[in-house]
Amino acid sequence: MNRPESRRVNASTDSHQARGAGRPRPGANAASAPPTGIERWALARLLGLAGNPPVRFVLWNGVEVPASDPPPLAKLQVRDRRTLWQLLSNPELRFGDAYTRGDLEVEGELVECLQAIYRAFPAIGEQSGLYRGIQRWRNRAGLNTLAGSLSNIQRHYDTGNDFFKLWLDEQMVYTCAYFPSPTLTLEQAQQRKMDYVCRKLRLQPGESVIEAGCGWGALARHMARHYGVTVRAYNISHEQIRYARERAAAEGLGAQVEYVEDDYRNIRGQCDAFVSVGMLEHVGRDNYPTLGAIIDVCLAPHGRGLLHSIGRNQSCPMNAWIERRIFPGSYPPTLREMMAVLEPSGFSVLDVENLRLHYARTLEHWLARFEGHSDEIGARYDEAFTRAWRLYLAGSLAAFATGWLQLFQVVFTRSGENAIPWSRAHLYEGEP
Amino acid sequence: MNRPESRRVNASTDSHQARGAGRPRPGANAASAPPTGIERWALARLLGLAGNPPVRFVLWNGVEVPASDPPPLAKLQVRDRRTLWQLLSNPELRFGDAYTRGDLEVEGELVECLQAIYRAFPAIGEQSGLYRGIQRWRNRAGLNTLAGSLSNIQRHYDTGNDFFKLWLDEQMVYTCAYFPSPTLTLEQAQQRKMDYVCRKLRLQPGESVIEAGCGWGALARHMARHYGVTVRAYNISHEQIRYARERAAAEGLGAQVEYVEDDYRNIRGQCDAFVSVGMLEHVGRDNYPTLGAIIDVCLAPHGRGLLHSIGRNQSCPMNAWIERRIFPGSYPPTLREMMAVLEPSGFSVLDVENLRLHYARTLEHWLARFEGHSDEIGARYDEAFTRAWRLYLAGSLAAFATGWLQLFQVVFTRSGENAIPWSRAHLYEGEP
Repeated sequence: MNRPESRRVNASTDSHQARGAGRPRPGANAASAPPTGIERWALARLLGLAGNPPVRFVLWNGVEVPASDPPPLAKLQVRDRRTLWQLLSNPELRFGDAYTRGDLEVEGELVECLQAIYRAFPAIGEQSGLYRGIQRWRNRAGLNTLAGSLSNIQRHYDTGNDFFKLWLDEQMVYTCAYFPSPTLTLEQAQQRKMDYVCRKLRLQPGESVIEAGCGWGALARHMARHYGVTVRAYNISHEQIRYARERAAAEGLGAQVEYVEDDYRNIRGQCDAFVSVGMLEHVGRDNYPTLGAIIDVCLAPHGRGLLHSIGRNQSCPMNAWIERRIFPGSYPPTLREMMAVLEPSGFSVLDVENLRLHYARTLEHWLARFEGHSDEIGARYDEAFTRAWRLYLAGSLAAFATGWLQLFQVVFTRSGENAIPWSRAHLYEGEP
Repeated sequence: MNRPESRRVNASTDSHQARGAGRPRPGANAASAPPTGIERWALARLLGLAGNPPVRFVLWNGVEVPASDPPPLAKLQVRDRRTLWQLLSNPELRFGDAYTRGDLEVEGELVECLQAIYRAFPAIGEQSGLYRGIQRWRNRAGLNTLAGSLSNIQRHYDTGNDFFKLWLDEQMVYTCAYFPSPTLTLEQAQQRKMDYVCRKLRLQPGESVIEAGCGWGALARHMARHYGVTVRAYNISHEQIRYARERAAAEGLGAQVEYVEDDYRNIRGQCDAFVSVGMLEHVGRDNYPTLGAIIDVCLAPHGRGLLHSIGRNQSCPMNAWIERRIFPGSYPPTLREMMAVLEPSGFSVLDVENLRLHYARTLEHWLARFEGHSDEIGARYDEAFTRAWRLYLAGSLAAFATGWLQLFQVVFTRSGENAIPWSRAHLYEGEP
């Protein structure tokens, strides 16, 4: 994550209320002239393209667009002309940039506002083709080469373990939890998720597991501790691997779990189970056949595999701001696109589950903890950093809650493997 | 189903042993000259392309190919030169044709032999591209126009209800059953399947269901009787619709269930649940977006949908003989290809389950009942008909058991629908 050093101020920690909007910048006389008719028309047109969400822009001189509609759910205060033109030229990217800088302020509840925007937004098939084409071209992603992936991932995950500790669960699981009951705590739901993954993989004591993209290593430790397996877990984030190794050693799991600081493309060896939770969305579509070929080489004849990834109902790039500023190189695949990992090697999909609302619930917990520590975060990081993370968490929550993002768990075996359960009831037996 | 009238003889009802092979046809002197070296070489090459399955061809004069391998699992007796050349020119289609006519006989257990052939056969990605190209072109399917679909379906399903009664369950369900325990009877497993579909759809009393491709109408009756819903069920098979209407009336369900003799493309009206069990594999890939658009028009905002279809792990046409002689126009899609129904309309896949082994088990029951009634079938139908159906049932069983065919159940809602259960445990609660 970039940490812009400009405009470092104390964070507004307990509210999303506007701070800067309406106050013209010193020396910005020409830029602060009243908005022209063309500017107001263009902004109304932008709202139209976005499906006319129940929000109202409030420009730097107090002019409102639209002016006549019923009371909006939220007001979006635009600080100056430069911000307006940035929004008009590339709204998907510049909304987040302007919010990060504090040049766009949301007056109203941030998550509700973002959900309303997502709900109003036209479905992929109903969007203007020209508009989408321009957006795609403007926000085209870089290639996920080995070096590029390293840079992309380090940027996000090496922000500092201490930062993530403030709002993740105690095991530092940075993927969708599983809430068979929505009242579970985040800690409980992350434990349940890890257990659910192990059940889906039907792990047996003594088996070997390869994990691609292990984060801070919680799943590998869980598998070793509760299922008696050995795990080789890969990750290219130096900070995460260091943490994972130290924690496994401290918990006496060092002999069972090996954390390898390397790319999934360098995975070697054989395994009874292959698991990847929350990596595929960073892999990039071009690399799906490569990932599939690696699984094909690793997985034993009777092996089981599980891919857990953020996804889409319809093919569409990642939100440009998330892709550029938060998760460079990320792309959430549709189920159809995910099959490009499995189909070329002839794997057989046994089970797909969409845990979309579980990710929304997970993000509610994360965002609440983030806000609960906003004093601490504000003291340690600059305001832009805090605002960017708040928008990222709130925006992701809104995207999962409104169906713009999905969460697919896909279980597979080799084709023709017949040692499979007759029903999925075993996944739910003896649950607390 | 065609019923060739030629060579009507009493069926060999309790064995798959050879009858005709080795006996030259009268007047076939030139045709019965010993196989040439080129013919033996070509046959060996064919076996090589097929992955050298553990079978041995025995030609009309007793020559065996291959001659030197270990004892085979089964012997394939080839009656004459014409049959050999047909096999060489288009093995996928002509194997079944020759078996149907009795010009190719399997000495050994038929299902085991077919499973061995499927197991040895190279995976899609490992097959010779030229070979596959020729096979695809030779066996290219006709288009599923409205008139073509009618002809295709009438050919198979209007064979006569009495024939299917001999080997289907009491409710006449002609799709994959559900065996949460493999020891269930076929009747129990079909009931469990229908119940499982209703649970996946979360049917509530008073809701309306549209069913596309209802067979003899068992699922529609089950839904009405046990879940208190109204069902409009479509089918283009006249024989099936007639049976379904009579049975619903006799069971007092006439007011709740309406059977419509029409194509899925003519479905009209609104529904809380859309279900299609065993139709998609007859729809043809080109029509998937059409089917999706129809579901999009019909399904209520909070509606649920379920598609149940034979499928594949890798894209590949239906076995040519099945496609030409048994199920004209059929194509089993991969999960990726199935998404062409749901993705264009933005539906959200909640759950996919692969019930492949359940179809193998279902076919074991059907084949056993078929063989148990072979006296009756032999008395009513000619031998070619009996042999074709035996090969079709045994071959389908072998294909599911070895992973050449899959059975996907896909549950979906509209994008952004949040009234969904937090877990799938409800599918397994209170089961007997």
